[in-house]
Amino acid sequence: MTGRVICAGLGPGDPDLMSVRTDRLVRGARHVAYFRKKGRAGQARTIVEGMLAPGAVEHAMEYPVTTEIAVEDPEYNRLLAAFYDDWADRLCALAGGGAEVVVLCEGDPFFYGSFMHLHERLKGRCPVEIVPGITGMSGCWTATGRPITWGDDVLTVLMATMDEDALARALARTDAAVVMKIGRNLPKLRRALEMAGRLEDAWLVERGTMPGQTVQRLADFTGPAPYFSIAILHGEGRRP
Amino acid sequence: MTGRVICAGLGPGDPDLMSVRTDRLVRGARHVAYFRKKGRAGQARTIVEGMLAPGAVEHAMEYPVTTEIAVEDPEYNRLLAAFYDDWADRLCALAGGGAEVVVLCEGDPFFYGSFMHLHERLKGRCPVEIVPGITGMSGCWTATGRPITWGDDVLTVLMATMDEDALARALARTDAAVVMKIGRNLPKLRRALEMAGRLEDAWLVERGTMPGQTVQRLADFTGPAPYFSIAILHGEGRRP
Ligand SMILES: C[S@@+](CC[C@H](N)C(=O)[O-])C[C@H]1O[C@@H](n2cnc3c(N)ncnc32)[C@H](O)[C@@H]1O
Ligand SMILES: C[S@@+](CC[C@H](N)C(=O)[O-])C[C@H]1O[C@@H](n2cnc3c(N)ncnc32)[C@H](O)[C@@H]1O
Repeated sequence: MTGRVICAGLGPGDPDLMSVRTDRLVRGARHVAYFRKKGRAGQARTIVEGMLAPGAVEHAMEYPVTTEIAVEDPEYNRLLAAFYDDWADRLCALAGGGAEVVVLCEGDPFFYGSFMHLHERLKGRCPVEIVPGITGMSGCWTATGRPITWGDDVLTVLMATMDEDALARALARTDAAVVMKIGRNLPKLRRALEMAGRLEDAWLVERGTMPGQTVQRLADFTGPAPYFSIAILHGEGRRP
Repeated sequence: MTGRVICAGLGPGDPDLMSVRTDRLVRGARHVAYFRKKGRAGQARTIVEGMLAPGAVEHAMEYPVTTEIAVEDPEYNRLLAAFYDDWADRLCALAGGGAEVVVLCEGDPFFYGSFMHLHERLKGRCPVEIVPGITGMSGCWTATGRPITWGDDVLTVLMATMDEDALARALARTDAAVVMKIGRNLPKLRRALEMAGRLEDAWLVERGTMPGQTVQRLADFTGPAPYFSIAILHGEGRRP
């Protein structure tokens, strides 16, 4: 008897936006695993609150480090690699013992998701399945009330962790854009948008489809951006 | 009593991948509308086969033209604009009479979806709501079994209807790419990938998550690409 590891995409935050398949997997799971920052409830776990079966075993996979060490520091990489190695072994052992383990993942797992690092380590060792989900960006552009792309518009998805000049160049030449991982990079993103001549058109969505969602012009935004925030530049392409 | 128009994203094709909210809306709808090509069942209608309530009224919105006239021909635009005007009036009249009309849309409605053209005409005239969905591209990259983006990877979404040189330039400078609307543009896309030096890394997914799904190297692909096909270049970014 072999079990398996299933990573279930949870969608952007509103539990009503998870797929029928993910909903069924979450409610039926005997083993549920999710990432979180130490000392936090964790966004994935919060989304499924009230849905887990009585007696479901929870595996909280707590990051050894999030923003305490710079991403460029080799120590950051070493700590995270060891963390993913360890959890890959543990999930594999559970699956090897016949368990089906449902790993919760915000948005769509194969789109900048943490599960991908476990997937790299699990594949070939035990059966792994991925259930796609609605991305955070889909939740966010829907929240703005305007389509993201029309006709032949080019959409570029960028991380605010990128180099400022590269960000500005990419923003200048695309029709539509989505910028993720903003947080402490907001001032840099604002400068890059300004350089690209696109600051006035940018929107910032905090916590799209979650409680406390806000939608505002990025130029008017003050205060730090939370982890769950996305900047949006809408395309203006051809339309009949 | 005022009704409303709700556009429900259906996801990439597998009915199990629609959201819990869309599933509920589709099953409960008294009025269901969907786009289709004349003489065809229509992909959106096919996805919900077996789900509609007994007695649900179906409104098939049949495109006056799809590929018979070139997109650049002013007549194409005129015909489509009249078509969207007409259906906006009809859906508005239904909503004004108190009905809730569920419009079915493949993937995510605000991501290159036809409903956007109705949305432009409906807003301000009757209540309109959008339910995001899993995009076709999420279904397709999940089908390849590999993540689309890692770390700070830039993802560019392109239409194969674009100019060949613009396509090649965009493909050359991005980390990851998704190319949609392939169909008769496949030979052009192949040349653009070749020019960008990326033909060997490209995958083609036909009918992602639908019956008859295929995943193959684009370079090996022979024969015409169906309407529902997407090309994928995976990112190779930072990973611990
Ligand atoms: C590590 S990525 C994970 C992306 C996820 N797999 C997805 O499909 O959306 C985390 C980033 O996603 C963005 N994000 C995801 N969901 C969001 C939401 N509901 N509202 C705002 N931002 C969101 C934020 O920019 C955040 O920094
Ligand atoms: C008009 S766009 C609609 C996109 C849709 N709103 C979405 O979110 O995916 C149509 C294009 O989407 C792509 N597409 C959508 N679903 C697909 C699927 N399941 N498999 C392959 N291609 C798909 C194809 O490239 C097709 O030409």
